[in-house]
Amino acid sequence: MGSLDFYFDFSSPYGYFASTRINELAKRYNHRVDWHPFAGEAFKPSTTGTSLVQNPAKRDYTRKDYVRSAAFHQIPFKLPSVFPLETRIAARAVMWTESKFGEDKGIALAQAIFKAYYVEDKNIGDPQTLVAIGEALGLNGEELTQGINDSFTKEQVRAELDLATARGVFGSPFVLLDGEPFWGFDRLDQLEAALQAKSA
Amino acid sequence: MGSLDFYFDFSSPYGYFASTRINELAKRYNHRVDWHPFAGEAFKPSTTGTSLVQNPAKRDYTRKDYVRSAAFHQIPFKLPSVFPLETRIAARAVMWTESKFGEDKGIALAQAIFKAYYVEDKNIGDPQTLVAIGEALGLNGEELTQGINDSFTKEQVRAELDLATARGVFGSPFVLLDGEPFWGFDRLDQLEAALQAKSA
Repeated sequence: MGSLDFYFDFSSPYGYFASTRINELAKRYNHRVDWHPFAGEAFKPSTTGTSLVQNPAKRDYTRKDYVRSAAFHQIPFKLPSVFPLETRIAARAVMWTESKFGEDKGIALAQAIFKAYYVEDKNIGDPQTLVAIGEALGLNGEELTQGINDSFTKEQVRAELDLATARGVFGSPFVLLDGEPFWGFDRLDQLEAALQAKSA
Repeated sequence: MGSLDFYFDFSSPYGYFASTRINELAKRYNHRVDWHPFAGEAFKPSTTGTSLVQNPAKRDYTRKDYVRSAAFHQIPFKLPSVFPLETRIAARAVMWTESKFGEDKGIALAQAIFKAYYVEDKNIGDPQTLVAIGEALGLNGEELTQGINDSFTKEQVRAELDLATARGVFGSPFVLLDGEPFWGFDRLDQLEAALQAKSA
């Protein structure tokens, strides 16, 4: 069974869109997915160009495009009232959960966080909200709180970002399949073609 | 018969990709296309964020994506040896041709310029090259040269850019259908859905 790396920022609606498809897509070609939360760096000028806020026309277009694309692809979506927001704590929660309970539990938490933010309009920048989401998945709230604040977890999140940057990841969503990069929800079709070619 | 506005920069490969599809797509839904060359502004920070050159990882990815996307969509493409380049003169040539001989002749010239740049690797920043492309379409080389340097043509190109910016256009390719914006070759599927809904 092959695997691919899925990088995303919880503050990226296109990352959320991809999160609703990536596992099923990979599974069709006998691949598993390693989920890598991207600690809120994806929208910094250093990694993806001028912040949308600096270009009102682009910002307005993009907000319209989120809604229109979600409808086009039949993905439940509501632009959060607090958007974008700091996702470092959410990334830590997922990273800690993966380390302690494995990839599948980490993915389940990441999916629950995406849903809380883009469907239920919850503020996932708030630690209490994140802990409640974790508890709903059966995690121990106190342990999760400690995990989020653990210096090892913080170091892991920083190290993941450095590694991702070193691998050429600069935006969200970003997929690496055998070193081949696919940036954006719009590239899942070309990712599928690559998976197809690989399994042929 | 309805119409839609197609904005593009000759220095934008995704604009070229869209140029190979937009007329046929519009025609299927009984729409005609007004082509608007975008005078090399589309890649300036003021309109589309940090220049790709400022982010090596993004620049390298994008160059790979041009080639991969062209192959995926079966569009003839070769990254030009001089890329990107100043496209103001090419925009003037098309603008002058449209004004003097009508939209269809302007579109034919724009398509020939795209082909010269992305298929034949000709330097379309060079006036002589542009004039030769025009002559191959039956235009008078001396008239075209005068037209390119005509102050009225220059003013037209500036005015088109101001109008486009006022309409919220900030990148290439960009389509406006009854005021609804579609940015990027990746949005032709949603543009088609809008044309379908309109004709339903």
